[in-house]
Amino acid sequence: MKDKIPPIYREGRSIFVLDQLALPDSVVYRRLGSAEAVADAIRRMVLRGAPLIGCAAAYGMALAAGGRGSQRGRLSRAAKLLLASRPTAVNLRHAVERMRAKGEAVAKAGGRGDEMLDALLREADEICHEDIQANLRMARLGASLLPRPCNVMTICNAGALATAGIGTAVGVLRWAWRSGKIRRVFACETRPYLQGSRLTMWELMRERIPCSLITDNMAAHIMKTERIGAVFTGADRIAANADAANKIGTYGLSILARHHGIPFYVVAPSTTVDLSTRDGGRIPIEERSSREVTEIAGRRIAPRGAIARHPAFDVTPHELITAIVTEKGLVRPVDGRRLAHVLKR
Amino acid sequence: MKDKIPPIYREGRSIFVLDQLALPDSVVYRRLGSAEAVADAIRRMVLRGAPLIGCAAAYGMALAAGGRGSQRGRLSRAAKLLLASRPTAVNLRHAVERMRAKGEAVAKAGGRGDEMLDALLREADEICHEDIQANLRMARLGASLLPRPCNVMTICNAGALATAGIGTAVGVLRWAWRSGKIRRVFACETRPYLQGSRLTMWELMRERIPCSLITDNMAAHIMKTERIGAVFTGADRIAANADAANKIGTYGLSILARHHGIPFYVVAPSTTVDLSTRDGGRIPIEERSSREVTEIAGRRIAPRGAIARHPAFDVTPHELITAIVTEKGLVRPVDGRRLAHVLKR
Repeated sequence: MKDKIPPIYREGRSIFVLDQLALPDSVVYRRLGSAEAVADAIRRMVLRGAPLIGCAAAYGMALAAGGRGSQRGRLSRAAKLLLASRPTAVNLRHAVERMRAKGEAVAKAGGRGDEMLDALLREADEICHEDIQANLRMARLGASLLPRPCNVMTICNAGALATAGIGTAVGVLRWAWRSGKIRRVFACETRPYLQGSRLTMWELMRERIPCSLITDNMAAHIMKTERIGAVFTGADRIAANADAANKIGTYGLSILARHHGIPFYVVAPSTTVDLSTRDGGRIPIEERSSREVTEIAGRRIAPRGAIARHPAFDVTPHELITAIVTEKGLVRPVDGRRLAHVLKR
Repeated sequence: MKDKIPPIYREGRSIFVLDQLALPDSVVYRRLGSAEAVADAIRRMVLRGAPLIGCAAAYGMALAAGGRGSQRGRLSRAAKLLLASRPTAVNLRHAVERMRAKGEAVAKAGGRGDEMLDALLREADEICHEDIQANLRMARLGASLLPRPCNVMTICNAGALATAGIGTAVGVLRWAWRSGKIRRVFACETRPYLQGSRLTMWELMRERIPCSLITDNMAAHIMKTERIGAVFTGADRIAANADAANKIGTYGLSILARHHGIPFYVVAPSTTVDLSTRDGGRIPIEERSSREVTEIAGRRIAPRGAIARHPAFDVTPHELITAIVTEKGLVRPVDGRRLAHVLKR
């Protein structure tokens, strides 16, 4: 069920990532040889998606361990670099902290050089493996939320290209499609980066799942006229009170879903939850370059000198979320207490 | 206050329209020599905006009167062609009907040939003149709705480029800016045609009104974080019950405004009202080519073969509209009774 074109893979001590900026036109892999290269690829969005960023950062930490000089110093510098590459997604921080702890443990046991490198590469493999497993559990759980065949909507790409597995929100769609519970997926194009049109449509079309692309501003009209049965999205960080940060546009979609009486589901592994962030208002929202709004594919679409905003994420308050699907179970009703309860499993 | 670059003008018996497809990069005028050329320009969106389409169609009818053969037959064919060029906006129909009636009247009075042509050109001039006057009255009335300086939001282009005058929604913004009631305008880019980024930003920047471009899916986040005081939009057709069809995305924006407690104003001349359409559900929604969604500026942004939807308009139910601003007065509360009452003035 996992696409044959993985967004990241390891061959020995080399890490390869699919260049998502080249999709849907070309399938190009980039070899990343250092933590610096990984951080740069994340920053430039060669790869993206909160869980996938976590996997890539784990490999970045492993690659840093293979260098010369003080191992602790190298891991510390790599961690700093990777953590700064995208501030909103928290899976990255979880992965970096886990790798740092593993590094300490291996060092304490006397591991050095190649031994350290290989131990950390295996730990990163394990993080990917866990993500694959989490995806499958969420897919099954999320699909069970659909009572009968219906049209569904999604935003951005919470798919195989955003994780090591079959995806979070799109993983649910794959599973639901195989179970005959999906008629058609409406994919919001997701300006400015167009992850919906470039990536989600590519994934869905490869799986032969009936899908229609819409511009983001068509969502309300399509909800009203196409009997959308559910909206599924991913998340980049879920705060302790269950507010969820995700790709810009998600918050608006949750309001539109509520207005039309459509259930709104967030699908994210437990590594997306950050209990140290009290509520959504405290999640840092990355503001990216305004050129990503005033230009499309290198072509200027606004007057020269136009000011543009580019918050890359927004926060959906937990009140607007019908359920959060994690690999540890469903969070429903969506509040901090229930979230904490499910995470303890 | 009217921009020095008019979207349409007449020189003797020649009609020139600004090619809005070339904006914001180039200011290019196209000479339109026949009703066919006008209909084609409307269909290809060389010019757009419900009131402007009305003005252009009026000139198209005049040009048809100047041809050979039966005058009534020519006007009838021209009317059919023009009415089919864009099905949603109703100002076009009002203009065509008025020109046909004028043609009949001139014919009855014995007018033929150049006399007929000139009479109809003057009638079209009069339609433009009335639009200019209506714009000014709506601008003053709409600006009075803003109690104090605030940030506002708009979608698509309901500006000088959409009318013969200073614009409908953007006319209000111009007037309010001059009265010190606007801090900043947030312009939704308005995919797929990008009228917001290409046209509204161009107009606002030329007037030196502080403005920020946002992608459509940022609207909810910006409403929440930038204390938007009001949303102003135009309309392509207002039904008898006061439901309003406008550029795709308007309906969603009205839901987001309601959720955030922000007044949502529709600004449109009385020629936009169609009392023969009972409610919004009966307004025909033009479905345009899906290539306008899968391509931007001629460059494909979705996988080859992707299916895309392209409803060009949506319908905002009257319950979500705080007030309709017409040149005949404010419709508030927004319902069919009040609308009919204001139209009788």
